[in-house]
Amino acid sequence: MSLLAVGSVAMDTIETPFGRVDNVLGGSATYIATAASYFVAPIRLVGVVGGDFPREYIDFLESREIDLEGLQVVKSGKTFRWGGRYQYDLNTRETLFTELNVFEHFNPIIPPAFRKSTYICLGNIDPEVQRKVLEQIEKPRLVVGDTMNFWIKGKKKELLATLKRMDIVIINDAEARQLTEEANLIKAAKAIIRMGPKMIIIKKGEHGALLVTERTIFSAPAYPLEIINDPTGAGDAFAGGFIGWIAKTDDLSEENCKRAVIHGSALASFCVEQFSLNRLKDLTSIEIQDRFREFRELSKFDAEVLV
Amino acid sequence: MSLLAVGSVAMDTIETPFGRVDNVLGGSATYIATAASYFVAPIRLVGVVGGDFPREYIDFLESREIDLEGLQVVKSGKTFRWGGRYQYDLNTRETLFTELNVFEHFNPIIPPAFRKSTYICLGNIDPEVQRKVLEQIEKPRLVVGDTMNFWIKGKKKELLATLKRMDIVIINDAEARQLTEEANLIKAAKAIIRMGPKMIIIKKGEHGALLVTERTIFSAPAYPLEIINDPTGAGDAFAGGFIGWIAKTDDLSEENCKRAVIHGSALASFCVEQFSLNRLKDLTSIEIQDRFREFRELSKFDAEVLV
Repeated sequence: MSLLAVGSVAMDTIETPFGRVDNVLGGSATYIATAASYFVAPIRLVGVVGGDFPREYIDFLESREIDLEGLQVVKSGKTFRWGGRYQYDLNTRETLFTELNVFEHFNPIIPPAFRKSTYICLGNIDPEVQRKVLEQIEKPRLVVGDTMNFWIKGKKKELLATLKRMDIVIINDAEARQLTEEANLIKAAKAIIRMGPKMIIIKKGEHGALLVTERTIFSAPAYPLEIINDPTGAGDAFAGGFIGWIAKTDDLSEENCKRAVIHGSALASFCVEQFSLNRLKDLTSIEIQDRFREFRELSKFDAEVLV
Repeated sequence: MSLLAVGSVAMDTIETPFGRVDNVLGGSATYIATAASYFVAPIRLVGVVGGDFPREYIDFLESREIDLEGLQVVKSGKTFRWGGRYQYDLNTRETLFTELNVFEHFNPIIPPAFRKSTYICLGNIDPEVQRKVLEQIEKPRLVVGDTMNFWIKGKKKELLATLKRMDIVIINDAEARQLTEEANLIKAAKAIIRMGPKMIIIKKGEHGALLVTERTIFSAPAYPLEIINDPTGAGDAFAGGFIGWIAKTDDLSEENCKRAVIHGSALASFCVEQFSLNRLKDLTSIEIQDRFREFRELSKFDAEVLV
């Protein structure tokens, strides 16, 4: 099994009520690949950085057995930088600055060795660029993709074309409503399935996640965290944990996709405990398995029904 | 087992994107008692109405085996009337009018035959009035209570005193945050437990419900309804289904409280399918059991973990 993650690699400056960090490692491809690296190795990453990208970040990604053959380094350019501030309730965030730099004209070139990747995870990038990636891949077994309000608003036509080529779309509840102009989340999910994907996973932050197919709905609880230091990357860690589990088990059944949602939720819950990727640096498989079991306890109830 | 419900009995005028009804049966005690009536009989109701309260509403409550000995009828007065309008997404509502009428000086007198009730459910009324109810009850086995933003803001001291006498408090997420001034819902729940109740149930509308005790957290999914005609009374139907199940089984274990949360969620999901109490008029026990099982399927996943 081979897993390819494509998306942004960034340097983030983040303020939350619990602290501030400057120029830390971030980006959708980074979070996806790091989360997935707990399930399969190596993870193939495709992205772009500038000549200023710190050696220690390269070292970290390599320590997670992430294959950086597809990471373009534009020596004369600067890495994509993003600054954001979270409010007290951590549900709303304000973008302080976006410096696209080398990411502005990101043209992902899939190295020949990556073109037969089995599992593809497309981070939240321009839907036209997502499609260009898929055109370079030979018969992937599964394509999972993300998107965001910016593309729903600005490139809806291109997004709809790309959605037809995704098997599973992972987006948040507000995006699902925006994409379909449907207030009811279940109706919105079903409308997205009619757009092409066979499965949609709706991330609801502190309320967990929903997996919806034409005939099934699965509701995953949120892990009850009392300390959340930095929500950045949670959605990408979710996607990475999800596709990582699928790639590890090589099982696309609905039952296994439910387990993958729980693994995605587990990785997202670890992610937000600390700033940047700090908590995803050295998880153990015992920690991941324990959290999986805690998720099970969270939603389990005995089926006894009195007559 | 005997179950007593105390709260408002009202005539509601409701507008939703899906229709409008005028002067239909409503009120917290009405929804609680009707939902609970699917589990135990008779349900004891204490409330007040005016001389204008329609005979057909009395007939309906009696058809559900609700004992109306504690329903004061003030012949010269008018019944509490409430008018509300729901917006397109059904999550926000606007109060169009509130005519308290005979409910303004509601002084609940518990009939002697009701004073030994085992299970007490206090609808969302003035916390001082809730306390007056409890002073008239001899050693209840369980006191479940609701409250709302109006009392949290205006009568916080009285509410805190009443909370000490509740075993289980059932409120929504915004109210839990408001009461504790804590953005993190898990921290808010634990703060409320420190105020007195042994258990708190947080209703999250389309995101389900959380049961929290000092050592346990249980996450119940929401039933994935595509058609919601009228959200009015859902929280009270939840409370009625919850305490109804507890009274039927006479089992206060945490495991059984989880099942009660699912039964509460089931009754709430039926409630919102139609306006007023229309869907709660003639449910069958098969329908309730089927929905309980559907809830189980919704959140169930196989625990297999690969090493």
